[in-house]
Amino acid sequence: MKNFEYQNYIYSRKDENDNTVISVKGVDIGSNKLTIMAGPCVIDSYDATDKIAAKVKDLGASVLRGGAFKPRTSPYSFQGMGTSGLDILHDIGNKHNMPVISEIMSADELDYFIERIDIIQVGARNMQNFDLLKKLGRTNKPILLKRGFANTIEEFLLSAEYIMKEGNKNVILCERGIRTYETFTRNTLDISAVPVLKRLTHLPVVVDPSHASGIYWLVKPLALAAVAAGADGLIIETHINPRESSCDPEQTLTIESFTSLMDELLPVAKAVGRTI
Amino acid sequence: MKNFEYQNYIYSRKDENDNTVISVKGVDIGSNKLTIMAGPCVIDSYDATDKIAAKVKDLGASVLRGGAFKPRTSPYSFQGMGTSGLDILHDIGNKHNMPVISEIMSADELDYFIERIDIIQVGARNMQNFDLLKKLGRTNKPILLKRGFANTIEEFLLSAEYIMKEGNKNVILCERGIRTYETFTRNTLDISAVPVLKRLTHLPVVVDPSHASGIYWLVKPLALAAVAAGADGLIIETHINPRESSCDPEQTLTIESFTSLMDELLPVAKAVGRTI
Amino acid sequence: MKNFEYQNYIYSRKDENDNTVISVKGVDIGSNKLTIMAGPCVIDSYDATDKIAAKVKDLGASVLRGGAFKPRTSPYSFQGMGTSGLDILHDIGNKHNMPVISEIMSADELDYFIERIDIIQVGARNMQNFDLLKKLGRTNKPILLKRGFANTIEEFLLSAEYIMKEGNKNVILCERGIRTYETFTRNTLDISAVPVLKRLTHLPVVVDPSHASGIYWLVKPLALAAVAAGADGLIIETHINPRESSCDPEQTLTIESFTSLMDELLPVAKAVGRTI
Amino acid sequence: MKNFEYQNYIYSRKDENDNTVISVKGVDIGSNKLTIMAGPCVIDSYDATDKIAAKVKDLGASVLRGGAFKPRTSPYSFQGMGTSGLDILHDIGNKHNMPVISEIMSADELDYFIERIDIIQVGARNMQNFDLLKKLGRTNKPILLKRGFANTIEEFLLSAEYIMKEGNKNVILCERGIRTYETFTRNTLDISAVPVLKRLTHLPVVVDPSHASGIYWLVKPLALAAVAAGADGLIIETHINPRESSCDPEQTLTIESFTSLMDELLPVAKAVGRTI
Repeated sequence: MKNFEYQNYIYSRKDENDNTVISVKGVDIGSNKLTIMAGPCVIDSYDATDKIAAKVKDLGASVLRGGAFKPRTSPYSFQGMGTSGLDILHDIGNKHNMPVISEIMSADELDYFIERIDIIQVGARNMQNFDLLKKLGRTNKPILLKRGFANTIEEFLLSAEYIMKEGNKNVILCERGIRTYETFTRNTLDISAVPVLKRLTHLPVVVDPSHASGIYWLVKPLALAAVAAGADGLIIETHINPRESSCDPEQTLTIESFTSLMDELLPVAKAVGRTI
Repeated sequence: MKNFEYQNYIYSRKDENDNTVISVKGVDIGSNKLTIMAGPCVIDSYDATDKIAAKVKDLGASVLRGGAFKPRTSPYSFQGMGTSGLDILHDIGNKHNMPVISEIMSADELDYFIERIDIIQVGARNMQNFDLLKKLGRTNKPILLKRGFANTIEEFLLSAEYIMKEGNKNVILCERGIRTYETFTRNTLDISAVPVLKRLTHLPVVVDPSHASGIYWLVKPLALAAVAAGADGLIIETHINPRESSCDPEQTLTIESFTSLMDELLPVAKAVGRTI
Repeated sequence: MKNFEYQNYIYSRKDENDNTVISVKGVDIGSNKLTIMAGPCVIDSYDATDKIAAKVKDLGASVLRGGAFKPRTSPYSFQGMGTSGLDILHDIGNKHNMPVISEIMSADELDYFIERIDIIQVGARNMQNFDLLKKLGRTNKPILLKRGFANTIEEFLLSAEYIMKEGNKNVILCERGIRTYETFTRNTLDISAVPVLKRLTHLPVVVDPSHASGIYWLVKPLALAAVAAGADGLIIETHINPRESSCDPEQTLTIESFTSLMDELLPVAKAVGRTI
Repeated sequence: MKNFEYQNYIYSRKDENDNTVISVKGVDIGSNKLTIMAGPCVIDSYDATDKIAAKVKDLGASVLRGGAFKPRTSPYSFQGMGTSGLDILHDIGNKHNMPVISEIMSADELDYFIERIDIIQVGARNMQNFDLLKKLGRTNKPILLKRGFANTIEEFLLSAEYIMKEGNKNVILCERGIRTYETFTRNTLDISAVPVLKRLTHLPVVVDPSHASGIYWLVKPLALAAVAAGADGLIIETHINPRESSCDPEQTLTIESFTSLMDELLPVAKAVGRTI
């Protein structure tokens, strides 16, 4: 165990009762009730997103996720709908009374995000984009900060500190898998990070089993494991027809699979003293 | 997802009902009932081991673990009691009616192991010691094969195949953490390996949360996660007084911690349809 | 060897004579003559930087490096002098007739960089900050793109493509070590990346042995290895008194060490048909 | 830089003049003259091996390599000719007056190796097969110890210590690439390990650019880099017709490529004060 200095930061947990709960439009993230965030990888139309939102809400999801600005390795891949995608997400969130989350890639769109999006996501590739972190720290929006795919827990917490130091204490940490030598899965879910983060910090911790595995049939067992290990929530890619999705079809759940996941998640949540 | 050829091997699972159960002295490994293996990292005396055995059996462990030959990075570290440690383990196993498991480091001791030990463990450093694997394949002893700390799932399964090809089908797979860039934990538990292995092979899969984390307070959450993800059992370092243990005191549970673990494990096991 | 699609990109090398040379203030990067970039990790005063510049130029360096905006893991570490650091670097570059290079962390300072800095560096943490890459692609400034510390060669080249697709073909690639399980060195210099990049792309390739190793006494052997493997240049942290430097003292060369490096580099350069 | 205890071991270098030279049949490994070991991945016939030996000796190789026992990931891959392969290697070594090196996989064959083989190789997968190391330590044969593909430099040196502690001081260290997330190359050559090992230990250090890269066109630049970084020798897979080789054809040099390598290696060796 590496002995880093994790005391005396704003993120540091003082004792076992020191747990931040972030409330957004009636959803309490970090509370005893698990927060399930679900929705498509990328927003490609109003109708498809609307149908997915209706379904996942009905099945127990409380936050709607959807990408409008997509960080793609290649400049020739579809980059997302941009601001019009945010408009769609905002309208559908209102319609179904669900807070919405979407990833920001540049501070240029910050005002647009602040007006339309309830939780702003910082993706793994921008976890150490310190300029962006500082600017988000000067807002009061909840920020879901994803762990960089090759960043240590210490670096992850210090990136959270960049946001909090500027004044914004509403940070949600998200473990989404790290890069290792193993090639069977897209990434390696660092399940240990969940109890480590819960011990070191008072911030809510959610897990993304979709990006961690990259394989649809691994999402359910990893989701159960995450909750058993103490996660406060999950963020899951879901689509009416994954094969029609513009990105990540291999890791996206169908509504049937999402239903099955929620069915099996409930008893595990209860077993560790949580509700859904 | 890497597309390796996993069909048509002896280890390959034919369908979802194809699950090998390995029975050893009344313990069914790979059955609906979880197998809890517990005991000291290293056997250093009859009395200490006897006390631990009595306690862990009482708390629900069904297999007694204990090291006699220890693979130590430095030649100047304590290397274990050797054959006299196996004698102690064997006697205490008989006394408490528990099958015993211990790690083999050389085929030279194979006859001694066969006479005294019920499950022979191959450690992570010997996962690709193909000569040893072949010799174990010519016995009919149950073999617990630990994944090498930098081996892929494909390599892990092909090492199992080395044993099975020689005739011994009694192989138990053990995920024990892989080596990554993260230094907070001793290794990174590859929790995804559990459902992947359960899908690709009919062999029982157990998890070692002690070596995976290297930190005593991580053993419980990782154990719960492993069972939630589908593991068939756990192997856990436990000691009456970890600080007196000759090795790995930081990751060894006290009896109090082991009690707490078993208490919290039961509802999670039930939640995923298992018993203990 | 992974079989990725590297043909038909703007970065793709057509044949062994297809080598881009980037000329900046009389320095030809990617030519037969090696480009040595040297200077302090961070600019902390006019006088110290001026002295270093005079020394390294005299010893054969042709580009002056110096950080003004520093990407620090912790928000409580010194973040650099900012724009006033760029002013100092610009003035000293003019005085000694050396082009200057410095790292940009936010597009907000792009105009300031364009006016004062000859080569704009994108650091490892921003290699997939696609918004920044696109904006740099709309300038005609030479860009030194550092490989992310956990990015593949394929991802590295596609980030270069992000810049080039917008119109700016003046991209210099920089290998600076990758993150592995080895903890003796700060990173692991991926020396193979040098000949791989030289084969796949027509762009100049330089190596940063300072960040790759994190240890001053490794800078020289790694620099020799880089040139032997085909690198077009080096970027090296150098200081009159490393212990006075505000960052990275352990990996910074003294003038004496830099002198020794240049002395030993010359015959190796000649041995592979290069000049300095 | 990790601060491990490397002083006061048998392997520890006392000062910069403390360099072990291992003499075997007139070849001085660790001396100012580089040691080039070359030959086929696997011995598959007398005639092919004889032709290769004649060629590589003529081109400057002083040690003949050839595999007889091959550690293969799958039990269904060709496992080598076994003892008859050792016989062939021994006879051809005598004919051409070259010491021979081959990999041992089990102590069962130790007597056979001692009689016929001049340098016994321990492969990466057996670097922590401590039983084998101890038995080799009780011989006086030169041992070429390959670094495990996921072992740290500290672990590597302590495995050397296992051999030396038993009495055998004739250990040659071999860096052959480590396992990382990068998939373009088979492994990542840790070039920094060369100067680190040369500083910490008095033992000879050789580099295997064939296994490190897995790609024939990378062998030459990596070989030049290794010598520039201070390696005492190289071990290179070479074949008259790599496509006919039973293993590793993609990384094996033709005689033409080996000739070109030796031609370009000579000036680099001279540049760093070595001969061939």
